[in-house]
Amino acid sequence: MSLTRIHNLSISLDGFATGEPQSAEAPFGHAGERLHEWMFGTRFWDAGGTAGVDHAFAERHSHGIGAEIMGANKFGPPGWQDDPGWKGWWGPNPPFHTPTFVLTHRPRPSIAMEGGTTFLFLDAGPAEALEQARGTAGGQDVRIGGGPTVVRGFLAAGLVDHMHLVQVPIVLGRGVRIWDGLEALEDAYDVEAVSSPSGVTHLTFTRKRD
Amino acid sequence: MSLTRIHNLSISLDGFATGEPQSAEAPFGHAGERLHEWMFGTRFWDAGGTAGVDHAFAERHSHGIGAEIMGANKFGPPGWQDDPGWKGWWGPNPPFHTPTFVLTHRPRPSIAMEGGTTFLFLDAGPAEALEQARGTAGGQDVRIGGGPTVVRGFLAAGLVDHMHLVQVPIVLGRGVRIWDGLEALEDAYDVEAVSSPSGVTHLTFTRKRD
Repeated sequence: MSLTRIHNLSISLDGFATGEPQSAEAPFGHAGERLHEWMFGTRFWDAGGTAGVDHAFAERHSHGIGAEIMGANKFGPPGWQDDPGWKGWWGPNPPFHTPTFVLTHRPRPSIAMEGGTTFLFLDAGPAEALEQARGTAGGQDVRIGGGPTVVRGFLAAGLVDHMHLVQVPIVLGRGVRIWDGLEALEDAYDVEAVSSPSGVTHLTFTRKRD
Repeated sequence: MSLTRIHNLSISLDGFATGEPQSAEAPFGHAGERLHEWMFGTRFWDAGGTAGVDHAFAERHSHGIGAEIMGANKFGPPGWQDDPGWKGWWGPNPPFHTPTFVLTHRPRPSIAMEGGTTFLFLDAGPAEALEQARGTAGGQDVRIGGGPTVVRGFLAAGLVDHMHLVQVPIVLGRGVRIWDGLEALEDAYDVEAVSSPSGVTHLTFTRKRD
């Protein structure tokens, strides 16, 4: 069975998954790299990194995924739709290695990158996007890659089987929240919290069986 | 040295320390008792309870405290100021056992209860209230008892030495937030997160030394 999964989505104590304002120079706004430092210290990111609980969670990002869906705000800075040459933040060989659907109201032709990543642009809601992504995933799982607005949309639509959040001990104060509109989310999920020696807390949401 | 401390303040994943609406029948609104179930399972609350990490944190509430400061919304339901006979939620022997200052714009005469609790009513901001409480604490620490609005005020004023929050894995969606207006709080504190087998995560903020 092909699941819909979210991995390594980092949030502040006050629930912001990105700061503001987002720009080409500061993709996460005033949050800078603070939401992701925990990951830079792991072997998942750096061969010399740690292989503990942070790594164990981080590397799940890559296993058994056949397609990704991301929002327009993850693919590029504000205004990327006006740059016909924009191919994402990640250089010629992006770290997705699968069909990668970008939700945008201004679709453009697909872009085949090195390493197996193909960007496909789609003007669609969560259910339709998921159906299309599932069709390209070869029976493997579909990852919802973020950002927070897209994640909230899939959660609110009841389409997420597994979510892994990483709570970082900072108070951002402003940005885009993950929790808005998700009252009683725990009714549908088993929630687990595991704190790490690095200071972050891993939160996993596993959909309850019917 | 007399410190200013906060203990056992429970919050949801989305940072609400109480639900809504608050009333005599539902002091925490739609949150009900869900924010505090972790505590009911400990020996601190019930002699037959657990003596693990939840208990270890919970019982610190009572040690070395010489006075408490609480907000009007903790002392009673909306409108208690119009009831001259209201003496708090806690019956004849409240669980404070020290001078307990209630911040309200409508002060009334002090009330001596059984067990050492005296309620004193004060129309004052954080710094002045703390000075008065400190004067009655006999050299011991002062506890800021909540609710969230009062806690935020003391944090924003830089008056808190130690804070213990308990994050409960539920999404309340509405109520009173703890984090608003506290951007970069971590600059002044060492923050630690410890997850418990009960499912909650204990967050401690210890003021950095100058």
